[in-house]
Amino acid sequence: MSASSIAVIGSVAFDTLETPVGRADDELGGSATHFAVAASFFTRVHLVAPVGTDFPADARTYLASRGIDLSGLETREGTTFRWHGRYHEDVNHRDTLHLDLGVFGGFQPTVTSPAREAGIVFLGNIDPTLQRGVLEQFPSPSLVGLDTMNHWIDEARAPLEALLPRIDLLVVNDEEARLLARERNVAKAARRILALGAKTVLVKRGEYGAILFSPNSVFAVPAFPLEEVFDPTGAGDTFAGGMLGWLAHTGDRSEKNLRRAIVYGTVLASFVVEDFGGRRMRDLDRDAIERRYRQFVALTEF
Amino acid sequence: MSASSIAVIGSVAFDTLETPVGRADDELGGSATHFAVAASFFTRVHLVAPVGTDFPADARTYLASRGIDLSGLETREGTTFRWHGRYHEDVNHRDTLHLDLGVFGGFQPTVTSPAREAGIVFLGNIDPTLQRGVLEQFPSPSLVGLDTMNHWIDEARAPLEALLPRIDLLVVNDEEARLLARERNVAKAARRILALGAKTVLVKRGEYGAILFSPNSVFAVPAFPLEEVFDPTGAGDTFAGGMLGWLAHTGDRSEKNLRRAIVYGTVLASFVVEDFGGRRMRDLDRDAIERRYRQFVALTEF
Repeated sequence: MSASSIAVIGSVAFDTLETPVGRADDELGGSATHFAVAASFFTRVHLVAPVGTDFPADARTYLASRGIDLSGLETREGTTFRWHGRYHEDVNHRDTLHLDLGVFGGFQPTVTSPAREAGIVFLGNIDPTLQRGVLEQFPSPSLVGLDTMNHWIDEARAPLEALLPRIDLLVVNDEEARLLARERNVAKAARRILALGAKTVLVKRGEYGAILFSPNSVFAVPAFPLEEVFDPTGAGDTFAGGMLGWLAHTGDRSEKNLRRAIVYGTVLASFVVEDFGGRRMRDLDRDAIERRYRQFVALTEF
Repeated sequence: MSASSIAVIGSVAFDTLETPVGRADDELGGSATHFAVAASFFTRVHLVAPVGTDFPADARTYLASRGIDLSGLETREGTTFRWHGRYHEDVNHRDTLHLDLGVFGGFQPTVTSPAREAGIVFLGNIDPTLQRGVLEQFPSPSLVGLDTMNHWIDEARAPLEALLPRIDLLVVNDEEARLLARERNVAKAARRILALGAKTVLVKRGEYGAILFSPNSVFAVPAFPLEEVFDPTGAGDTFAGGMLGWLAHTGDRSEKNLRRAIVYGTVLASFVVEDFGGRRMRDLDRDAIERRYRQFVALTEF
């Protein structure tokens, strides 16, 4: 198949971030934003998300400058989603100090053209019932990715499981995979999730890399051993955006290209953690991405 | 250089092992045993360790059947080192229920021929002052590996640091690397350890793989995503034994071959965790090792 665009449904937010190295206030964030910016290095992205009337013009200008289609960015009466988090010394752990869903609270996504024509759909981490409602608005997506979290696995297991047979790529971390499969061993957990119907399962392991489980193969990559992880916010969404962006760009769904896509996801994620929120992505370009891709080859080849 | 033999100094023990899947009593174990058995698939190994008068003939017969030179296995009046451990549901954590050093308590290693002629020396996890005393008994080793643990980093930092400039390969886990370097970030910690004098640092990350840090390169590998980790005892020593065994066998210290050696370490470690203690190694052969090496290539290539 040929190159296609991606529609992403999820949150656009402002994040206040405290990490062991400092603090940043009101950084443009949210799962759909991080995904869209990463994917935009490779392909056209349609962003479907609600923002409040407080959403500033400069944020809109930035996203548009990345070629992201904002016709699905719905401005609603109220405030934009805000999150304030603090990371521990071990940045794999964090506390939510404040959370205000704002207009994201009553989000009922409506997908219009041109987003409806996207070949790839990424259902960000929202209520599985909403994810299903979104998915049904796409006439013929060729690849559907889905992200979820412990909260939905606990509170909405039935609709989530019902959705899995329609999902080509489930994106979860170790803990979510274990919880969803009710199985401690990650490899076994992934097998059970495949048996529930997802075509492939990507298990993200943060600083330890990622593993892709397919019915007939397994692909494991380490992460970049970075000397400074400034702020891990958005790393997982950036990974998914880089990965699906590459697949959309190339239009090649072979196992070999899927593996390359995962390396691009790893590469994009290694950039986003180098500064607060999505700041590092603002001065990134394809040359820097290609250089780091080659560094990753050098890091892993034997 | 040509192929050479390896001398390993460390513990030979009997382990009682409790894991989430069962229990095994009095399994032949100890760091030097696991290392020696793994390395013996590739090269001749000289085992330097003390055992008590209770050490049974069948254990000796087994080790000799692997081609391991037991002339340095010193029988002393008393009992062989015994350890009883229980792993948690998360097998990355374990408790020591009982420990009896036996004759290992007063271990003063003496290295005689043919062990003295070994080209590669692996100093297992013992008091750094003893490690230095052992090292000085080797006239001209071409590669020296060293394992240590939190206890020695805390209690014997000065002699340990003094030894590092004589070490070609330091083998530690994440936590030990952080403690030794007094630095949370593992990549930075490894840099500091290189600055302390170790030529290369291998950071073992258990189920997440391993990273080799050299002054001019970094090599990262994932571990095998195993569906059953039966018992992780000995995995780290088996990794080191497989790695150095391959280097001894090939006599090739190029960066490329060092990377292959790490993959062989990964492969050997993936076998040992499949059964209690070192049981899985008893029916292993080079064909099975080569098959899994090729599986690892398939797992990681992109």
